[in-house]
Amino acid sequence: MTIEFAKGHGTENDFVVLPDPHGKLDLTDARVVALCDRRRGLGADGVLRVVRWEALGDVAPEPGVEWFMDYRNADGGVAEMCGNGVRVFARYLARRGWVSPQGETAIGTRAGVRRFRFARGDADGEVSVDMGPARVGAATTATVGGRAFEGIAVDVGNPHLACVTTAELDALDLAVAPGHDVEVFPHGVNVEFVSPLSDAPAAVAMRVHERGVGETRACGTGTVAAAVAVLRASGRAEGEVAVRSPGGRLRVTVGGGTTVLHGPAVLVAHGELDRGWWEAAGP
Amino acid sequence: MTIEFAKGHGTENDFVVLPDPHGKLDLTDARVVALCDRRRGLGADGVLRVVRWEALGDVAPEPGVEWFMDYRNADGGVAEMCGNGVRVFARYLARRGWVSPQGETAIGTRAGVRRFRFARGDADGEVSVDMGPARVGAATTATVGGRAFEGIAVDVGNPHLACVTTAELDALDLAVAPGHDVEVFPHGVNVEFVSPLSDAPAAVAMRVHERGVGETRACGTGTVAAAVAVLRASGRAEGEVAVRSPGGRLRVTVGGGTTVLHGPAVLVAHGELDRGWWEAAGP
Repeated sequence: MTIEFAKGHGTENDFVVLPDPHGKLDLTDARVVALCDRRRGLGADGVLRVVRWEALGDVAPEPGVEWFMDYRNADGGVAEMCGNGVRVFARYLARRGWVSPQGETAIGTRAGVRRFRFARGDADGEVSVDMGPARVGAATTATVGGRAFEGIAVDVGNPHLACVTTAELDALDLAVAPGHDVEVFPHGVNVEFVSPLSDAPAAVAMRVHERGVGETRACGTGTVAAAVAVLRASGRAEGEVAVRSPGGRLRVTVGGGTTVLHGPAVLVAHGELDRGWWEAAGP
Repeated sequence: MTIEFAKGHGTENDFVVLPDPHGKLDLTDARVVALCDRRRGLGADGVLRVVRWEALGDVAPEPGVEWFMDYRNADGGVAEMCGNGVRVFARYLARRGWVSPQGETAIGTRAGVRRFRFARGDADGEVSVDMGPARVGAATTATVGGRAFEGIAVDVGNPHLACVTTAELDALDLAVAPGHDVEVFPHGVNVEFVSPLSDAPAAVAMRVHERGVGETRACGTGTVAAAVAVLRASGRAEGEVAVRSPGGRLRVTVGGGTTVLHGPAVLVAHGELDRGWWEAAGP
């Protein structure tokens, strides 16, 4: 049995894709860690196992939803969702011919069913992912270098604190986690600093600090939280926002009771893992 | 035309291998940088292009030497040699069936002809590379955190300053380059700190700071310099030394007017680059 893989990224959030339609791969935590190791393995922020939902086992399938995105963090742990990963997952499925690039496709994730579509019905086009509703919470503050930034709590399936600011983003020291109100966020929080670039069309620059990770080049749910916060700051509950992160550009549509994240997904290479390496990496 | 690749490492110094026997690849600096980018590409410390010497063009072939290791640094620049890369290069050639794993094989590099062999004549065995003579120079010192370490200059094709010390290696701050005598090393120097673990058989631990790079997990020529220095410190000009770096274990044989580096080489995966990605990455 050969073990196929692909490597790809969405706004520089990068993944090893493992096609495993029949759920035959023994993908242990140790093998995920080895795959994601940037020197001893292929290197990635996480692994996206592509499995038919009926072959997954641990989450009951939804009728009519064929594929499941089994996302693992680089530390081997199961994770629920990844807004950048799902675009790479979608690109892989369409390039492989396992889904049609036309119309909407539903896939399973550990955060529930997610839906995506391709611009112009083209497997190489921009990928749009329905990220579900974003719920606005309390006004609160983040602290960087002793300076307080006003923001709002936004729940996008995970907790965010999005601060719209006129401060120079490049000057912020995000090497340490920004301070936050532990009463509002008892389990920690992802913090976005959002600088408006233009109002109509709405465009912002963003930097993000992910809880437990540090500053990252891009964050799918953080991009949604930033868009919701900047719309709200200009008195709007709906609209479209272009968000520029260090890793690239995304667009967010807020409206109709949900949020949609639009952006690129790049497949770099595909091939086979060395069998001896795979055996040595496990169990 | 498909563009094949392999990914591998030697003591955690990692490489993208590009088989290009007929010299057809348009491997621009921009494409090397893109390949080595750890998020937008495959990610590596460098690229090893596998080309028949007669197809290389810019270095006149040696009669009877079939293959040339065209080594590029992650910044796209041509580099002369890489002691860890040549083991990965050797493993690739033997696994591919392009050289026999039995006996000695000569390859071309920009530092001249290099020779390797496989333990037990087995393409999967340890790889031994003749690194050429190491020339001992002046006694001199390296400075870390205001503290001076006595060492010796060792030329292994590139300049090294190897310091045998009883200091606790883990306690050294190598985040900044160690100080050195600019009269002895006008073009900078690679600095090794070498802690003896046992005398017979000789075994040492090593940390290395590579000029222009910073601390690395392992360094082939630095390993040779460390072995030469530790033998000299015990009054010997020849012998065998086991060297443990953060990236793994190597052995060095010093004698017969040359040095031989013995160690592992791991191939992780092989496959094809995405054609659209390759075109977008160049020229």
